[in-house]
Amino acid sequence: MGDMSLKHGSKNSELIEIRENHSPSSGLFFKIRRQLHSELSSFQKIEVFENDFFGNILFLGGLVQTSEKDEYFYHEMLTHPAFMSHPAPEKCVIIGGGDGGTLKEVLRYPIKKAWLVEIDRRVIEVCQKYFPWLNESLKDKRTELVTADGNEFIATTEEKFDVILIDSSEPVGPSSVLHGREFYRKLKKCLNPGGIIVAQAGSPVFHLEHLKEKARLLKNIYPIVHFFCGPVPTYPGGSWCYVFLSESRLPRDVEQTPPSGLKYYTTEIHRTAFALPGFMKDLSD
Amino acid sequence: MGDMSLKHGSKNSELIEIRENHSPSSGLFFKIRRQLHSELSSFQKIEVFENDFFGNILFLGGLVQTSEKDEYFYHEMLTHPAFMSHPAPEKCVIIGGGDGGTLKEVLRYPIKKAWLVEIDRRVIEVCQKYFPWLNESLKDKRTELVTADGNEFIATTEEKFDVILIDSSEPVGPSSVLHGREFYRKLKKCLNPGGIIVAQAGSPVFHLEHLKEKARLLKNIYPIVHFFCGPVPTYPGGSWCYVFLSESRLPRDVEQTPPSGLKYYTTEIHRTAFALPGFMKDLSD
Repeated sequence: MGDMSLKHGSKNSELIEIRENHSPSSGLFFKIRRQLHSELSSFQKIEVFENDFFGNILFLGGLVQTSEKDEYFYHEMLTHPAFMSHPAPEKCVIIGGGDGGTLKEVLRYPIKKAWLVEIDRRVIEVCQKYFPWLNESLKDKRTELVTADGNEFIATTEEKFDVILIDSSEPVGPSSVLHGREFYRKLKKCLNPGGIIVAQAGSPVFHLEHLKEKARLLKNIYPIVHFFCGPVPTYPGGSWCYVFLSESRLPRDVEQTPPSGLKYYTTEIHRTAFALPGFMKDLSD
Repeated sequence: MGDMSLKHGSKNSELIEIRENHSPSSGLFFKIRRQLHSELSSFQKIEVFENDFFGNILFLGGLVQTSEKDEYFYHEMLTHPAFMSHPAPEKCVIIGGGDGGTLKEVLRYPIKKAWLVEIDRRVIEVCQKYFPWLNESLKDKRTELVTADGNEFIATTEEKFDVILIDSSEPVGPSSVLHGREFYRKLKKCLNPGGIIVAQAGSPVFHLEHLKEKARLLKNIYPIVHFFCGPVPTYPGGSWCYVFLSESRLPRDVEQTPPSGLKYYTTEIHRTAFALPGFMKDLSD
C-alpha cells in the first residue's frame, strides 16, 4: 500500500522498498532506484517510483496503476476488444485513465475525437513528466482533455459515443462512484446505436465476489455482458478481468485488422480472452 | 528467495515475512502465520509456510512451488491439455512433481498406471504431511512412486508412456538437466505412438529469452511444438507457459469430456490457451 521500508540483507540492500498488499498477508514489492514524485493531491496520494525492472511505476492511493514495462497488457486489453468489435468507431470517451496509456491505444485508430475525462488534474501533470506516451497523445488534435468527475461528465454531456472505456481505479477513493448501478444506467444514454462499453473489473483471484456482484448488476442494465481476462504482471494475482457491455453488438465479431505496434493483443487473443476459467463460468451469459 | 525479514508498521506486524525475488528488484512477499517445516535435504532447501490467504505454501530452493489456494491453476494446465488431447491414455509418467498436485489431476482419468519420479524423497515425505491431496494419491493402487533422478529414469526405463508430464522446478538446482536437449531426445524413445509430452516452460515476462531458446531446441526434436499459457497467481508475473510436444497429435483435438471437480480447466480454456500474446507469436509453429 505504498508504505516504504528498508530491506536488509540483499544485493540491493541500499534501496528503499515500496509494496502493494494484495491480501492482508501477501503482495508485491519493488526495490526503488529513485522516488521521482510524491504528493497528496485534492483526491489521492500520487507517487512515481523508478524500478530497475519495471521502469517508472505510478501508484495512486498506494496501488500500482501502471508501469512503463508492463502497461501494454492492461491498456491493450481495455481498448482493442471494444474498437475491434465496432465497424467504424468515431467518438470515444475514456473515464479515468489519467496516465494516458489507454488514450495512446485509442489514438491508433482513425477516430474523429477522443475525450479523456480525468478527475485529478495533478495525475495528468505528473504523468506528462514521467510517462512519455502521454504528452504525444495530448498533442494529438483529436484529443480533448476534460478535468472533471467522470460521473458528472456522463450525467451532463450531450455527446454520444461509439466506444466508452472505464479506466477507473479500484472501488475505493475517487473512483468508487464509477462502479455503481446509477453510473452504468447513465452510460447507456451516452452510447450511439451499436456502441460498446468496456470497463476494468478487477482480479479473478482477489475480487471474485465483487465480480459476481458486478455481473448481476450489469445484466439488469445491458442485454450483452461478457467478461474477459488477460495477464497484467504488476496487478494483484497477475491477471485481470474486463467487462464488455453493449445493447446489440457481440464481442467476438472482430471487424477490422488491428493497428500496428501492438505487443499483447492479437485477433486470436481477442477471440480467446472471453473463455472464462471454470470458477468464473457463471459470470457471463 | 526464501529470505526472511521482519516487516514493521503493518497490521500483521508481528508476522515473519517470506519472499521470492522475480527480478533482482521485484517479487512477491507472504506474511507467515507459522513456519511449518524447514530443512536442507541432500538436494535443496525445503520449506513449508502457513499463510492466511494462500494456506500452506511449499518453497524449494527459495522458490514458490505450490500453495493450497492456487495449486489448481498450474496442476490443471500441466495435466489436462495432454490427457484431453489423447483418446485413451493408459500409462503416464510425471517427472518431478513431488508435491503430488499433478498426480492428483492425472488420477482423475481411468488410466492403468501413473509413475511419479521424484529425485528428492524428502519432498514427498514433507508434502505428505502438509498437502492433503498427496497421501490419497499415493494410496491409489495405480500410482508407482519412484525415488530417482528423472533423467536417469528416462534413460533406463523400458516402459513406454502415452503421456509424459515434466513438472520440474526451474533450470537451477536438481532440475537443470530436465531442461536440456539430451533429456528431450531421450523422452522421445519413451513415448507410445500418438503419445504426448507437456512440460512447464517458465514465465512469459521473466523468462522470455529462455522460452525462445527452448522453442528452437524443441523444434529440432519434435514435429509438433505448441506453447500455451495460463494464470498462476503465486508464480512470477502471475502467468505461466507450458509446452505441448508430440510426433503426431495436435493439441486442440479435444477428444473427451473433462473429469469432474476441475476449477480452472474447461474445454474452452483448452482450445483458447494456445493463442499466444503478440510478443510470443514466434514461439509456436
